[in-house]
Amino acid sequence: MGGIQARMEAALARFLPAAGIAPARLHEAMRYAVLEGGKRVRPLLTFAAGEAAGARPERLEVAAAAVELIHAYSLVHDDLPCMDDDVLRRGKPTVHVEYDEATALLVGDALQSLAFQLLAEHALADEPAAQLDMLRQLAAAAGSRGMAGGQQIDLESTGKPLSVPELEAMHIHKTGALIRAAVLLGAACGGAPEALRTRLDHYAKTVGLAFQVVDDVLDAEASSATLGKTAGKDARQGKPTYVSIMGLARARELARELRHNAHQALAPLGAEARRLRELADFIVLRKF
Amino acid sequence: MGGIQARMEAALARFLPAAGIAPARLHEAMRYAVLEGGKRVRPLLTFAAGEAAGARPERLEVAAAAVELIHAYSLVHDDLPCMDDDVLRRGKPTVHVEYDEATALLVGDALQSLAFQLLAEHALADEPAAQLDMLRQLAAAAGSRGMAGGQQIDLESTGKPLSVPELEAMHIHKTGALIRAAVLLGAACGGAPEALRTRLDHYAKTVGLAFQVVDDVLDAEASSATLGKTAGKDARQGKPTYVSIMGLARARELARELRHNAHQALAPLGAEARRLRELADFIVLRKF
Repeated sequence: MGGIQARMEAALARFLPAAGIAPARLHEAMRYAVLEGGKRVRPLLTFAAGEAAGARPERLEVAAAAVELIHAYSLVHDDLPCMDDDVLRRGKPTVHVEYDEATALLVGDALQSLAFQLLAEHALADEPAAQLDMLRQLAAAAGSRGMAGGQQIDLESTGKPLSVPELEAMHIHKTGALIRAAVLLGAACGGAPEALRTRLDHYAKTVGLAFQVVDDVLDAEASSATLGKTAGKDARQGKPTYVSIMGLARARELARELRHNAHQALAPLGAEARRLRELADFIVLRKF
Repeated sequence: MGGIQARMEAALARFLPAAGIAPARLHEAMRYAVLEGGKRVRPLLTFAAGEAAGARPERLEVAAAAVELIHAYSLVHDDLPCMDDDVLRRGKPTVHVEYDEATALLVGDALQSLAFQLLAEHALADEPAAQLDMLRQLAAAAGSRGMAGGQQIDLESTGKPLSVPELEAMHIHKTGALIRAAVLLGAACGGAPEALRTRLDHYAKTVGLAFQVVDDVLDAEASSATLGKTAGKDARQGKPTYVSIMGLARARELARELRHNAHQALAPLGAEARRLRELADFIVLRKF
């Protein structure tokens, strides 16, 4: 994993405009928002799915970077005062604290544009039509029926009692859609056949949900130092979480079940799915 | 022009998710931000350039809608309290006033995603590779070295004395890049050859600048009622404009010169450039 993370850091540093290019403050802030931070879970998933599909690494780093830029933009906007009003992210001041609100808004906007620009200007598939389909998938995953829609559902659910299916529907949009895109774009870079894509999609849905359950568990129990962001905030803001709805013990159990399901989705695959299996373990077992 | 505007209104209404689809509040606000408003200058330019290149209208309405969605998202974000803090737009309360700030942020984010989704999921060119190039152009025009970068330059220039070349550089990014994209995407829908694209690009740069000069003149002299947005605001905010730098009379003269240049760029073309000529006149002669 460390090798891919280092490769991604270098790729992102290369794809982002240099800090000296005008407008310098915006480019510096975009680099601040993206570089030297995060576990790069989505890029790791793109590379792991790409390995299962036999994709070339130079394609995967473009697709993974595009997904990560969408993720990074969403964090910058989510941290703004009108959203979660967070001051700490990945152990550093959030972008609007380090720079200012207007710059943070533009950083998120420009990172989103850059994600689509990357997918459009590099050769990622044998057929340009397949590449257009990758663009379509990422745009749909980011939009109002994907991640941005999940944020809206999250906003509206604050302080309200949710059922487990309602909570699940929120997370399928908010985090699940982009995690699915990370996996499916990796598979597409290798021209994965329909049957493999269906299998990887099932895996992606399962680890996407697991990721959120584990996040809620970590938020409930971790200190800010371990998490690298303000902890225990969901509970204080009255946001429904898996822990608040089903309790800590059951949420941990659910994460373990989802890990099992993810492994089952990969069962017919051989050594080419090794990284996908490792990631399912990493997502569920990190820090608890 | 009225026929194309009506056609665009219908196309945008069709491309935007219905207000009843979950998350309903977000989709309702996205429709509020885009529909029933604006002169649709960019779509008109896309259709006019497409006519000069012999493009099919069903392609043009997709390309024009994508450009208009990027424009609409930028207005929603520019109006936010941390940017221009505007309460009136196209004669209606701005999105964050009618809904709330968090929803307005997500509306802008989701409109940007939708723009790229449209360009990826409809057939717009004979070759998918040409369509990828259209996506790349729109993404570059929207991003940190295009529109979003222009916003950042605008932020940093408030209250500072700018030279005319500096002001021009700001507008080439802030409004010029998207107007160029509107024209070039229209040309691409018709598979315009290199020579025609170069000519249309020159036209686009000229009318893009003219558009901003006229905007500054209108802002300086119009009432809020005529303009449909808060007037005289640039001066109050200490923003440099063509009027503040060169005076009202010289700014009007510059607009007329730019109109002349736009017509010159089209001079070798025949009746197929009729709409482009009309638009250069419309952009410069509107409301003064």
